[in-house]
Amino acid sequence: MAYFDSASSAPLHPVARQALLASLDEGWADPARLYREGRRARMLLDAAREAAAEAVGCRADELVFTSSGTRAVHSGVAGVLAGRRRVGRHLIVSSVEHSSVLHAAEVHETAGGTVTRVVVDRSGAVSASTFAEALRPDTALACLQSANHEVGTEQPVAEVAAVCREAGVPLLVDAAQSLGWGRVAGDWSVLTGSAHKWGGPSGVGLLVVRKGVRFAAQGPADERESGRAAGFENIPAIVAAAASLRAVRAEAEAESVRLRELTERIRTRVPALVPDVEVVGHPERRVPGVVTFSCLYVDGETLLHELDREGFSVSSGSSCTSSTLTPSHVLRAMGVLSEGNVRVSLPPGTAEEDVERFLAVLPGTVAAVREKLGAPTPAAVVREDALVVDALGKRCPIPVIELAKVIADVPVGATVRVLSDDEAARLDIPAWCEMRGQEYVGEEAAERGSAYVVRRVA
Amino acid sequence: MAYFDSASSAPLHPVARQALLASLDEGWADPARLYREGRRARMLLDAAREAAAEAVGCRADELVFTSSGTRAVHSGVAGVLAGRRRVGRHLIVSSVEHSSVLHAAEVHETAGGTVTRVVVDRSGAVSASTFAEALRPDTALACLQSANHEVGTEQPVAEVAAVCREAGVPLLVDAAQSLGWGRVAGDWSVLTGSAHKWGGPSGVGLLVVRKGVRFAAQGPADERESGRAAGFENIPAIVAAAASLRAVRAEAEAESVRLRELTERIRTRVPALVPDVEVVGHPERRVPGVVTFSCLYVDGETLLHELDREGFSVSSGSSCTSSTLTPSHVLRAMGVLSEGNVRVSLPPGTAEEDVERFLAVLPGTVAAVREKLGAPTPAAVVREDALVVDALGKRCPIPVIELAKVIADVPVGATVRVLSDDEAARLDIPAWCEMRGQEYVGEEAAERGSAYVVRRVA
Repeated sequence: MAYFDSASSAPLHPVARQALLASLDEGWADPARLYREGRRARMLLDAAREAAAEAVGCRADELVFTSSGTRAVHSGVAGVLAGRRRVGRHLIVSSVEHSSVLHAAEVHETAGGTVTRVVVDRSGAVSASTFAEALRPDTALACLQSANHEVGTEQPVAEVAAVCREAGVPLLVDAAQSLGWGRVAGDWSVLTGSAHKWGGPSGVGLLVVRKGVRFAAQGPADERESGRAAGFENIPAIVAAAASLRAVRAEAEAESVRLRELTERIRTRVPALVPDVEVVGHPERRVPGVVTFSCLYVDGETLLHELDREGFSVSSGSSCTSSTLTPSHVLRAMGVLSEGNVRVSLPPGTAEEDVERFLAVLPGTVAAVREKLGAPTPAAVVREDALVVDALGKRCPIPVIELAKVIADVPVGATVRVLSDDEAARLDIPAWCEMRGQEYVGEEAAERGSAYVVRRVA
Repeated sequence: MAYFDSASSAPLHPVARQALLASLDEGWADPARLYREGRRARMLLDAAREAAAEAVGCRADELVFTSSGTRAVHSGVAGVLAGRRRVGRHLIVSSVEHSSVLHAAEVHETAGGTVTRVVVDRSGAVSASTFAEALRPDTALACLQSANHEVGTEQPVAEVAAVCREAGVPLLVDAAQSLGWGRVAGDWSVLTGSAHKWGGPSGVGLLVVRKGVRFAAQGPADERESGRAAGFENIPAIVAAAASLRAVRAEAEAESVRLRELTERIRTRVPALVPDVEVVGHPERRVPGVVTFSCLYVDGETLLHELDREGFSVSSGSSCTSSTLTPSHVLRAMGVLSEGNVRVSLPPGTAEEDVERFLAVLPGTVAAVREKLGAPTPAAVVREDALVVDALGKRCPIPVIELAKVIADVPVGATVRVLSDDEAARLDIPAWCEMRGQEYVGEEAAERGSAYVVRRVA
């Protein structure tokens, strides 16, 4: 059994476990109280804040503990937008941010604010110049992740921070995917993190607001955590979070080299072992443990299920996995194939044998899923002068499978129209064309769903 | 050493500790994932929800876990106010609610809503009829705690719930102080709780919204916990919270009898042992472990400090303890003495010997504090025809001490004016008059602070 989904949540680090246990007996009291149990809790909280601040690279009084990374993002975005409301109500986010950032942006839009979503290239990265173009005199806040959670691509945070600083706009960095690996470079203004991503316990997020950033905490007042994180402090978990951050940082240099090598094996060998695979994300600028690929003609949920049966826990941004990611906004923004998507995110300590076993098992698993899906009723009919594939009512990856089946029957230079009402087809048919060297002509409205027009050129 | 502040936070129950440890290894993964670690986490979460719902007396799908009791209150209040916005924007709260409720009410007022704060009697309880009078056609929500956190008085929740139900207004019950003792009676609509109050871990609150209550979660969207509690679920803590709730409930019947007897000793013996004490809160309708009293001529912070040195951790709603409670809004609403206030809240399992030792130590401790404070420079001067006590610049309890010193010099029927700029005097001088059988004439504006006029009648 191998758990390859640390980008979702990492198993508890032994140091986190140890620190949690030790502080259960010392850290349960109210740190605002003056008696001994309260003073002891306060000391633990202060020490954890110092340790976390040192790891982040900020002052202790700039850092508060929230109840999750999501809360840190929500509070951070809302606090800066409110604090800088006089400047304006324009918010910039990258189009591949975590849903917590995008949902905070949606709330801002609903409340009358405006949002610019900065595009990314095919590797999933923004460019500093594109980001700069989005800056306006009324920009209150810009948000950029340190690294993408689905494909591992690192963003040019330092450059973007410089551009924002130049324009006087604070940059909020969601560092959830990278904080365990090191400090975030550059002159950022606000930073968020999530302990369970680095092997800390659930229930702890970080919100860092640099001195000088205008910040107005939203929601009901609460004196705890500088008024920025309401609710009784979860001190044992906070202590465990800080202790494990230090511990993973101490191991980061050696472990990043090791994991990079292991993910590089997957990056290079999967396309050789499995036909019709697209490895996505930046080949070099990426966090050490994450590698993502998409498999044509495969249903992501079935593939995950089969890999789970083989003892591998991986994740998917595929349209077929979760109704809430139909298809993954990240893969869509990158313009890459989403069907049969698999994200492998190796936790520190992953054994080489497990990766080798994964590479041994994957080809047969993908082939089996393809075989299972490979025999739907052919629905190609010649109508008027163009071939029409009726894939209405068929879910991903069937529309692409149908297209692939008939392309050989299309004369070179002629077109085929794929009728589909599956949202994923909008992403996957152009991606298939790119992979296959065929021409994607475009999408047309149809009686039901859309018609995706493809010209055979090869 | 005896910890007598379980109303702030209870020490971790052994069952909570055990459940937390057991689920650290099973509950760290994302319960939304389909692989084995995710399914295992989901099973733990579902089981905890069932157990908590059974303890609360609701359906499992009505209950979500939040990151704290404060968050549960904030989300519950905001969600119902938004869901019933068409009905109106009037909110009712009791004047002795926990700060989380009062702060949520303040936010509502700032956003243009109206708030009625229902008065309480001298025991700290609202009456159902007073509550009923506050109901209006535009009332969106009413909030009432199950029991008061500072004085332990139980509120007539069932009667108030009936009155609200009759008017079609949902009642939110903050059950933080009572949930460990039993279900909340009556036909309430929304309920909140906090695990660390019943011996569960920090970082877990409960929010129950009955089916049929219009509820619109506020803040950025998040699919976790039915969209009502954003952020990654803290499953080990949730499991520990649910397990410990069941455990304390199993012990509640026997333990409540025992603690009631112990607090009754304090209620009856403290006034006999310590002169000039007022025991506050309802003598019978109260949660088992809480007893609160105020000591004339004592500074609460010093008293707490001295008791801590004697090995007793107690709390205070006294004006002198914390700048954020100057003086306690609860004691003020009750119209009782706030100076030298001590709240004793016994955790389950409190040893009888510890209570006896507390009763043995208290008289000397209070006497020592009084002696320390008892010799300020007398400042009584005869000016015009009335005696004036100039206590300007003096903090609680000095103004009352000065008053007590001069009252014997005031002819019966004549008045004395106490000049004070200490906020606590507004509460404590009338309370002193009531205790001493003197007539409180009223407050008058003065050059600095206020003049509190007292007529000697005894």
